[in-house]
Amino acid sequence: MDYIAPLQNLIDKFASLKSVGKKTAVRLAFSVLDMSDEEAASFASAIMSAKTDIVNCSVCGCLSDAEVCPICSDERRDRSTICVVEDTRTVMAIEKIKEYRGLYHVLGGVISPVNGITPNKLNIDTLVERMKSGEVKELIIATNPTVDGETTAMYIARLAEKSGVKATRLAYGVPVGAEIESADEITLMRALTGRRDIS
Amino acid sequence: MDYIAPLQNLIDKFASLKSVGKKTAVRLAFSVLDMSDEEAASFASAIMSAKTDIVNCSVCGCLSDAEVCPICSDERRDRSTICVVEDTRTVMAIEKIKEYRGLYHVLGGVISPVNGITPNKLNIDTLVERMKSGEVKELIIATNPTVDGETTAMYIARLAEKSGVKATRLAYGVPVGAEIESADEITLMRALTGRRDIS
Repeated sequence: MDYIAPLQNLIDKFASLKSVGKKTAVRLAFSVLDMSDEEAASFASAIMSAKTDIVNCSVCGCLSDAEVCPICSDERRDRSTICVVEDTRTVMAIEKIKEYRGLYHVLGGVISPVNGITPNKLNIDTLVERMKSGEVKELIIATNPTVDGETTAMYIARLAEKSGVKATRLAYGVPVGAEIESADEITLMRALTGRRDIS
Repeated sequence: MDYIAPLQNLIDKFASLKSVGKKTAVRLAFSVLDMSDEEAASFASAIMSAKTDIVNCSVCGCLSDAEVCPICSDERRDRSTICVVEDTRTVMAIEKIKEYRGLYHVLGGVISPVNGITPNKLNIDTLVERMKSGEVKELIIATNPTVDGETTAMYIARLAEKSGVKATRLAYGVPVGAEIESADEITLMRALTGRRDIS
């Protein structure tokens, strides 16, 4: 016996979410059934409003509930530095450390010829425009340390050079607090080649 | 910085689901943002319809999309045997093995004085009514093998005795301490065929 249709339908929806397996989808669907009608209605409307009320910031491209995101419109932030990331989740991760005071630019992915993602499919044109303003002094390129991420970093770095903007790359190495022996080989290699003077 | 309001709201909704942690909630919420508008709308409406279109079967109490569930209204099922379970997920798990041809009765929980769940808060009155019909010969009590599940089993068994109905308990093929719904199919089949008299 399958689940009754409205339940099976909900299970299928949950199963369509990223990295949700069948068992988890069933558990989540039953969890919705345990909600009060009000909770379920507010869950459904949260989904709708996430889609309708969230747009891409017209300046940096990150997810925003206004035309210009809170970071781009914050006058106190350092407008001479732009951290270039793949997606808004990286923005959130960097914001969490409360250390970085510059702006961001969200590419919306990485260049990946294999997957048919060419530079023109990413939010790169607007980055070039931003560099033209003369206000930007440094691009901190924080794409992920994958093959595509590195390719994209190199591509962006060349664009920065053309615009006379300094490009830097996030340092990669052994995570703080982790044991060196448990780091993977590529991380270790990065940590080694990126070693710095102690003095 | 928190997430922008509509996103944080959606994250909170996901986090309110059973055994969804904060990190998973963030991942699920972003997964919704990756959906097309149509997919998101159909997800939201699946949630609403699960709540509005699913009711409790008026006979056995299991989740149903009709007043009487497909199992209770299936003329080919053996009406002399009722399998008493805690919730509809257990019904689904037992149906999956395609071995059991009787009916069900969903209690909607177990007796748990500590949590203030007394017999009158469960779907027990209707079970007594069903036993009075004279059609029922056996109750297979399939509450989970927990302390409360056993207490409930004993309570139901006494009610069955009073009504002149034989009560059996699922055999301990189900791993003690685990929930019935998570048992694999073979274990469930063993548990079903090896059921024993309670009295």
